[in-house]
Amino acid sequence: MSGVNEFESIEYILEKGLSNEDYEKVRQVLYGRPVIPLEISSCTQHIADSQGFEIKAYRIPCPEEQLRSPRLIRVAAFQNQIPLPTTTKIQEMKDAMFKMAKEVIKAAAQMDAKIFCFQEAWIMPFAFCTREKYPWCEYAESAHDGSITKFLQQLAKKYNMVIISPILERDERHSDTIWNTAVVIDNHGDYLGKHRKNHIPRVGDFNESTYYFEGNTGHPVFETEYGKIAVNICYGRHHPLNWLAFALNGAEIVFNPSATVGGLSEPLWGIEARNAAIANTYFTCAINRVGTEVFEHEFTSGNGKPAHKEFGYFYGSSYVAAPNGSRTPGLSRTKNGLLITEIDLNMCRQVKDHWGFQMTQRLEMYAELLRKTIDHDFKPQIVRKHI
Amino acid sequence: MSGVNEFESIEYILEKGLSNEDYEKVRQVLYGRPVIPLEISSCTQHIADSQGFEIKAYRIPCPEEQLRSPRLIRVAAFQNQIPLPTTTKIQEMKDAMFKMAKEVIKAAAQMDAKIFCFQEAWIMPFAFCTREKYPWCEYAESAHDGSITKFLQQLAKKYNMVIISPILERDERHSDTIWNTAVVIDNHGDYLGKHRKNHIPRVGDFNESTYYFEGNTGHPVFETEYGKIAVNICYGRHHPLNWLAFALNGAEIVFNPSATVGGLSEPLWGIEARNAAIANTYFTCAINRVGTEVFEHEFTSGNGKPAHKEFGYFYGSSYVAAPNGSRTPGLSRTKNGLLITEIDLNMCRQVKDHWGFQMTQRLEMYAELLRKTIDHDFKPQIVRKHI
Repeated sequence: MSGVNEFESIEYILEKGLSNEDYEKVRQVLYGRPVIPLEISSCTQHIADSQGFEIKAYRIPCPEEQLRSPRLIRVAAFQNQIPLPTTTKIQEMKDAMFKMAKEVIKAAAQMDAKIFCFQEAWIMPFAFCTREKYPWCEYAESAHDGSITKFLQQLAKKYNMVIISPILERDERHSDTIWNTAVVIDNHGDYLGKHRKNHIPRVGDFNESTYYFEGNTGHPVFETEYGKIAVNICYGRHHPLNWLAFALNGAEIVFNPSATVGGLSEPLWGIEARNAAIANTYFTCAINRVGTEVFEHEFTSGNGKPAHKEFGYFYGSSYVAAPNGSRTPGLSRTKNGLLITEIDLNMCRQVKDHWGFQMTQRLEMYAELLRKTIDHDFKPQIVRKHI
Repeated sequence: MSGVNEFESIEYILEKGLSNEDYEKVRQVLYGRPVIPLEISSCTQHIADSQGFEIKAYRIPCPEEQLRSPRLIRVAAFQNQIPLPTTTKIQEMKDAMFKMAKEVIKAAAQMDAKIFCFQEAWIMPFAFCTREKYPWCEYAESAHDGSITKFLQQLAKKYNMVIISPILERDERHSDTIWNTAVVIDNHGDYLGKHRKNHIPRVGDFNESTYYFEGNTGHPVFETEYGKIAVNICYGRHHPLNWLAFALNGAEIVFNPSATVGGLSEPLWGIEARNAAIANTYFTCAINRVGTEVFEHEFTSGNGKPAHKEFGYFYGSSYVAAPNGSRTPGLSRTKNGLLITEIDLNMCRQVKDHWGFQMTQRLEMYAELLRKTIDHDFKPQIVRKHI
């Protein structure tokens, strides 16, 4: 899976390979209105260098209004490979992750980030390809008072930062059930709530349905001091209705913490979260992990090929998309990275007023259509010639 | 609006400006699996040259199955600028359009195209920017027996070709009401049915709501000898529910005849119809007109700028997207063009089986959510801290 997969990024190739004039033409069609690089202080850069992650920071410009002050928020997205081999003992892996997280969150705080989001199941290898219950289920822990949440609560409070922590959840109150869950911690360090992944894949090596069910937490929007946020976990980004539901509940930013591999989904990656930002008139932040994870025992992929030990190549490329169709460049396809994006939440309403998708969407018609569609004897609207 | 807008295409810049190796990396991420150019015969090329349109032809590869034979269909999309000034008398404009259409459809037939689609309101200038009722409303005519439909019926029969003809419709039976409508003519030259544009813009110079209402024909899927097809007219591509509805009714190809201008929508163009193909597991074919249309009388754009006579730059860039995430290159941004794409309709079910979006989409949950949402006293699912 390596070789052609291991190039830095599309943006790097375009910027390096094309003349300035050609690059600008391509950029404006592919990326929309320009984003503006933000300065990175030398002490923040020093953390990034010493911890081995790149740091990129942009501002997405937005016009000012008469009555509302700008609601400028810096959002942080972190993509990473697992710092130790998959065979590492669980506690040791968690400790290494905590150590890394501490430094990254410190760097994000120095950049004045107010909302921080990790990738899906960030504390662990994405081991669901193996279908092994042991030891991976031991990574699961309580959403509201597990060790990961407790650890992050301190940092959230210390840095006055909302933190989204996608974990494998163990629900002890309900018979020890496991879920794929995003925990939201507010900027005072308090547990605000959680969202369970709504759509579970059955494709490629994504054998997640062996471990957990479709989420039963609806489409919560978390009202934080820094905006109304929601979380669409990984495969949920393929479902426009999932994105829509967060919009109907009032989301201004929807995070999409993911774990997805080249070959399977890469041509879709730049399309889906960005289309969601446009169609639903909110910001989206798509985060993917990095690198190749190698497991102890071989497993097959249901594709006729021999058993193997490697999950495919997680291609990073995390980015932020705005409701006006513009987006940041992606982070690297190969390196750990922290993406800081300054956005003005006022843009959501501005673009709603401009494009009018909410006004023109005719929800009543679709509510009726969906109601009909789920009937077992639903008759599709087909036009045939009568002969 | 000209200058930077008048470059040929993104694909041309990338292919010319990048090394082969870099181009292939960029191409695979941005365009998915490779499409294969089809041969164009010299007599077809001759028509294109003499009529002043470019012709591009591709095959989107698809694996064979055991039980079903391939269902290979060649689809034709035509993008064009108006051949005469907007001040041309209506009958003269129509005659010029008919002359051009005759040659283009002949070329498409030589390429063995079985379904042909024009751009939105193809017979006329996109004059809705002006808000003038005279003379533009005179372009409207009956869907089932107007002059445009009658003209195309002959060609459909002659060439054994399904033709989709987006027109301004005059509904005489219902008080002379005007609609934005796509007429579907089957390959025997019979009128099969029509679809009226579901979502009408109120943005930029798209003052279409001055002329016609939101469509009342639902989401028909036309069962033709060459596949189940539907039409999502222009602004409807911004609405994921509109795309979804055609999928629920069984569409295999959804055409998106459009008229949209640079500055307003270009960064969205490559995203929306392609996202629809992925999310709904069907083929989409997005068609946009070309060139700048200059009107006799000045009009304003509601943006504080002086009155002017030019609609913005229609940027062409028509393309076909496949359910597996790949797409053809776009046609030119500046020239009339005919895009021929050979697809295997079997790919729809193959990708459904692979990705499983239909299985995992949880329609019941969303039917219930939409039902709740349309209530006037709907309470969004908001999570707040209880203090």
